[in-house]
Amino acid sequence: MEAGRVYNFNPGPATLPLEVLKEAQAEFLNFNNSGMSILEISHRAPQYAAVHEKAKQDIKDLMGLGDDYEVLFCQGGASQQFAMIPLNYATKEHPGSYVLSGSFAEKAYKEAEHLGVGEIIASSKETGYHHVPQQDELKIDPNAAYVHVCYNNTIYGTEYHYIPETNGVPLFADMSSDMLSRPVDFHKFDFIYAGVQKNLGPAGVVLVVAKKSLLEKSPEKLPTMFRYSTFYKKDSLYNTPPAFCIYMVGKVAAWIKAQGGLEEMARRNERKAKVVYDAIDNSNGFYRGHADKESRSFMNVTFRLPSEELEKKFVAEALTHQLSGVKGHRSVGGMRASIYNAMPYEGAVALAEFMEKFRKENA
Amino acid sequence: MEAGRVYNFNPGPATLPLEVLKEAQAEFLNFNNSGMSILEISHRAPQYAAVHEKAKQDIKDLMGLGDDYEVLFCQGGASQQFAMIPLNYATKEHPGSYVLSGSFAEKAYKEAEHLGVGEIIASSKETGYHHVPQQDELKIDPNAAYVHVCYNNTIYGTEYHYIPETNGVPLFADMSSDMLSRPVDFHKFDFIYAGVQKNLGPAGVVLVVAKKSLLEKSPEKLPTMFRYSTFYKKDSLYNTPPAFCIYMVGKVAAWIKAQGGLEEMARRNERKAKVVYDAIDNSNGFYRGHADKESRSFMNVTFRLPSEELEKKFVAEALTHQLSGVKGHRSVGGMRASIYNAMPYEGAVALAEFMEKFRKENA
Repeated sequence: MEAGRVYNFNPGPATLPLEVLKEAQAEFLNFNNSGMSILEISHRAPQYAAVHEKAKQDIKDLMGLGDDYEVLFCQGGASQQFAMIPLNYATKEHPGSYVLSGSFAEKAYKEAEHLGVGEIIASSKETGYHHVPQQDELKIDPNAAYVHVCYNNTIYGTEYHYIPETNGVPLFADMSSDMLSRPVDFHKFDFIYAGVQKNLGPAGVVLVVAKKSLLEKSPEKLPTMFRYSTFYKKDSLYNTPPAFCIYMVGKVAAWIKAQGGLEEMARRNERKAKVVYDAIDNSNGFYRGHADKESRSFMNVTFRLPSEELEKKFVAEALTHQLSGVKGHRSVGGMRASIYNAMPYEGAVALAEFMEKFRKENA
Repeated sequence: MEAGRVYNFNPGPATLPLEVLKEAQAEFLNFNNSGMSILEISHRAPQYAAVHEKAKQDIKDLMGLGDDYEVLFCQGGASQQFAMIPLNYATKEHPGSYVLSGSFAEKAYKEAEHLGVGEIIASSKETGYHHVPQQDELKIDPNAAYVHVCYNNTIYGTEYHYIPETNGVPLFADMSSDMLSRPVDFHKFDFIYAGVQKNLGPAGVVLVVAKKSLLEKSPEKLPTMFRYSTFYKKDSLYNTPPAFCIYMVGKVAAWIKAQGGLEEMARRNERKAKVVYDAIDNSNGFYRGHADKESRSFMNVTFRLPSEELEKKFVAEALTHQLSGVKGHRSVGGMRASIYNAMPYEGAVALAEFMEKFRKENA
């Protein structure tokens, strides 16, 4: 570990690749010999245009998508997408179908419900969000405008390990917390979005990767900035985009490519997750994982300790071992270790070793 | 000038104080001994909370505003505000009144018109936007929800030098391109907003500074993220804010304070503007300013040359003198020199000297 740095298990904003941070730091006052910081360059200047286009292309390359998909850079977080999606696509006649698998899936549904155009077709809420609803739990509505899933549930530590079969209904996914963490047959999705602050960059931009056929036309009655067609037709440059965030996402996408792409990310992420899950599974019940084994997330490992007192002690002692951000979300309690792409294997090992040590001292 | 850097006259994203950039660069890998970059720190962590609160307080201090006003950090640029303002405040019975003084004022009006809740109460469009409508041109509608003005018109290079008297109708202002550039009696405004990428930071956050009475309640029917009350009640932390942009805005606000506040900014900005306007006025008509003298902007100086050929030559030669970004907006043509807070006096002098040299060689 770099001197002075910690292993950062925060769920988002989250750890970023150190090489990427160093690169951005080195050129912070003078980007690409422009004589300006990337923060100061006009979004209409060729130096920025190259950054914008390369980021889009690298993302599409990593996802293995072609000309029928487009990448947009939006703002307002996934939370704003929760409203824009039903505004753009759902109607009372053709509602949006939602699968509830956690807090953010619920929030997405609530925005559609608020507009009177949402319906629930499956939910694991009643059983405490320990798993993501499986294929046989989905009550597909053939009349729906789309099926919406939240592909990784940061707070509960669950993740989809299958692609829902929707019988022709367009498949929409919030991938905020596992975007570009593993190979997925992205062609089977019609509309993917992701707040980048978990796995791909600093907070402030949302990726939308969707079929062009869905982006070309938006309801005329919507304000300009709430229509996906505005972003699509103007290449996300209708107004000034969050240029620095896009620049950082571009650097992270290039870093993923250089590491070996999504296959390599998946290999590393599974290896890291195994180390931490093993520490739970081999603890004789001292650590209790929240997620059912078949729904376990490779990105966020959630677990409880025997008491809240021990949980507080765990967080405090972890910090003295340079392990930061392990406290869980208040709605689940306990611990959450987020081990996104940029978390090195050594960080997962350090956490597992600390878990083992703490267990021996406190069991 | 720092080696390798240029004088950057871009209209936005725009030049930032070099001291601020250097400070951010120095702590880019390890913010405040957290062991993390500011890009990686959770928006719920105390290290970030301190940044967030200090930025808000410094902005209010600079504006001389007290407890009846609140600062929000929104996203989507001023363009999204153009829609959110009428959605939150205007109705068919109480429309928003708009003063057209340039392109962005028009865009703001168009969003309200699109929603069927906008009206025009003055316009300088018919005369080519050479001036901002004066008090005696405003047809105040006592029934209006608000009067909306665009306080500085980046594209045309005009700026308000008075505060509209609205006879009790709330005064709303887009100050994207002159926010915190001079002392203004901000108490006379009810709602001020500004995309920060011109005078205050990198693109990706919009400041809203408004009376709390306007922010407390928003129409229930609106989606969560389109209600100002969501931002107000959650201190702009309902979801992950664009943390890095807010951090940079905070640094710029602290820099303005340290320089001597808005009085000092105004002194510097007027001095810089005088140098460039003098170069126009003393050119025997070689340079023709777009703005009428009484509406001239201290932020954006716009002017034409005798021919488009000479204008192209001017842009190209300016670049060889380390003067970047002087090309005007396509809708006005010619030149535009943006001389925001962060442009040093030496930059304005360098431009004026180049203008004089170019004129002598080409008149």
